[in-house]
Amino acid sequence: MREVCIVGVGFSKWGEVWRKSIRDLHTDAALAAIKNAGVDHIDSMYIGCMSGGLFVGQEHLASMLTDYLGMRGIPATRVEAACASGGLAVRQAFIEIASGISDIVMASGVEKMTDCSGNDATFALATAADQEYEVFNGATFPGLYAMMAHAHMAKYGTTRAMLSAVSVKNHHNGSMNPVAQYPFKITAEQVEKSVMIADPLHILDCSPITDGSAAAILTTVDIAKKLGKPYVKIIGSGVGTDTIALAQREDLTTIKASTIASQRAFKMADKTIDDVDFAEVHDCFTIAEIMVAESIGKYEPGKAGEAILAGETSLEGKFPMNTSGGLKSKGHPVGATGVAQVAEVYKQLTGQAENGRQIRSNPKIGMTQNMGGSGGSSVVHIMEVA
Amino acid sequence: MREVCIVGVGFSKWGEVWRKSIRDLHTDAALAAIKNAGVDHIDSMYIGCMSGGLFVGQEHLASMLTDYLGMRGIPATRVEAACASGGLAVRQAFIEIASGISDIVMASGVEKMTDCSGNDATFALATAADQEYEVFNGATFPGLYAMMAHAHMAKYGTTRAMLSAVSVKNHHNGSMNPVAQYPFKITAEQVEKSVMIADPLHILDCSPITDGSAAAILTTVDIAKKLGKPYVKIIGSGVGTDTIALAQREDLTTIKASTIASQRAFKMADKTIDDVDFAEVHDCFTIAEIMVAESIGKYEPGKAGEAILAGETSLEGKFPMNTSGGLKSKGHPVGATGVAQVAEVYKQLTGQAENGRQIRSNPKIGMTQNMGGSGGSSVVHIMEVA
Repeated sequence: MREVCIVGVGFSKWGEVWRKSIRDLHTDAALAAIKNAGVDHIDSMYIGCMSGGLFVGQEHLASMLTDYLGMRGIPATRVEAACASGGLAVRQAFIEIASGISDIVMASGVEKMTDCSGNDATFALATAADQEYEVFNGATFPGLYAMMAHAHMAKYGTTRAMLSAVSVKNHHNGSMNPVAQYPFKITAEQVEKSVMIADPLHILDCSPITDGSAAAILTTVDIAKKLGKPYVKIIGSGVGTDTIALAQREDLTTIKASTIASQRAFKMADKTIDDVDFAEVHDCFTIAEIMVAESIGKYEPGKAGEAILAGETSLEGKFPMNTSGGLKSKGHPVGATGVAQVAEVYKQLTGQAENGRQIRSNPKIGMTQNMGGSGGSSVVHIMEVA
Repeated sequence: MREVCIVGVGFSKWGEVWRKSIRDLHTDAALAAIKNAGVDHIDSMYIGCMSGGLFVGQEHLASMLTDYLGMRGIPATRVEAACASGGLAVRQAFIEIASGISDIVMASGVEKMTDCSGNDATFALATAADQEYEVFNGATFPGLYAMMAHAHMAKYGTTRAMLSAVSVKNHHNGSMNPVAQYPFKITAEQVEKSVMIADPLHILDCSPITDGSAAAILTTVDIAKKLGKPYVKIIGSGVGTDTIALAQREDLTTIKASTIASQRAFKMADKTIDDVDFAEVHDCFTIAEIMVAESIGKYEPGKAGEAILAGETSLEGKFPMNTSGGLKSKGHPVGATGVAQVAEVYKQLTGQAENGRQIRSNPKIGMTQNMGGSGGSSVVHIMEVA
């Protein structure tokens, strides 16, 4: 297997982007990444998208997006595992370069979520859960994560203040991210007084609905050196799966797919969680960040909430989490999120994080944890400065 | 890159399968393939599916299908390029084994198309075309292929009899395939008297709407030898793309993405079309088989129709095409088709084709050509007896 590295990243505008279609958003991010990397071509591309079909009536993105990017003819593959689609795009690009089949591959993600009604978007997102056993009976994602939050609170004494701390921290970080959909700070009081969505989750516990795209250029170390741009190595990649429905889980208070995925990635990297300096994790809801921090082994079960509340995961803390602002503040165009996480780790490891959100302790190793649905699948990547 | 081979294949029931859900269909095919290969585990899986979201309201198949297969935890990735999704699943499994990341990978495809209304299915399929420039203006797939047929007839004098010959041949072959949705012979007169769908295409020029799944087990040559089962090597894999919309094509009478994909696959295999003994090609409409036979270089532009009418591509001909019955007779569960094509080539090369449809001339090399939409993307594989 060849070593693989990331040599450039790019974003489209994120938010409610009424004047751009799915093809515009993707093309903006892809061209930005190509420019950032300084490459003059790509051999192939992988596109993470959860549901072009339900959000904008467009499947078959591989053909359309290569064409609009001016790359007609190259191999292109859309990959999907709900909100983990972007992480899978990065993984497939990693595998293709590792195999020797291609030398320069783009991993991108895109979702155009605001072109359909709120009800339609809620249904589209719900297709990441079990249609026959959950969605048919009325389950939606805020409801599923609310159940997980209640279970976690009951088992470990996790508090409202801990949930709020996740949101406050991520908005603080996002206020420094030029791509963020909601780049402003909020207070715990604001979170707790915001409208209730599914008890105990208020709207400021929930990531938003977002239009957006992100892209990363992966290549070999030799090519990266020749390009003369900053690059980071991908030293570990892992995927894990679990039951799609909550009802069949052994335990509602942990994300087993993330535990499996991180263990696989650590094994490939020959590292442990103690070697990792910071992480981008999948905070689709505040409770998710707490559960993930435990599932990847950073904190003992039931101990992450306390640590977050104490500031351990803040930008200046021992283990910064979601320096980008996370899904909560940056936004969550579901297919793009996993790629955006990798892009943030790339920026942090190469000293390019904007507007004062650069981690000051000179980080060497970062990780991403991306997941689909209520944790039915998860993708983890570990990156190291070259 | 390691050598990769196929060591077993499996199918679910194909047709209007009212009593099976998408998870049942996939599990049936996957278990059949695992049994056929004699493996005791798989390291990961790739699932081709065009639109779980629009057909059955279920995305995130990776999580659900691993669980229902009894493989909870393993990495799983859904891939999609409309009707070429199955071919991409085979390709990704091939790349993952070639890279050394995994040793035994399942490539599967599934589509459950009859659980929604006819209008909804037509819309779901149309998302393989350009939503903003084609579908919004009323285009559907029979209409798009009818335009291609008219262009081909006008340019090359392709006749009604040639189109019918494709359908008659494929139904003849499909009558010997136990999985076929329509396993009966038809006559050219029946094709020409069947109801008109989009001039010049009658309903018996069109592949049907099908529920079904197919799976294949890919592994290394060493493991295949140890299993002691018949295996074939995948010696070439290629993907090509083109504009998603017909309006932007340089030429309506050829499938450029298939030309690119086949050239890439031949280059990897170090073979030419003259080395290939037979092919499974993407006859979603009769005109498609004619255009593809030309696009992959088997016949000069405008010459395939004549050759098919003369019987050159029949089971006993010089270059059998669609010995399985093709999409026309076997059925076309869109995400599964690319895997089913590979399964047929595996059966032919290992002497396992059922009911008298085994090619008698002892074929050594077979190829598959799978495509998405009106040819916006295409996947080609070349396989050789071990």
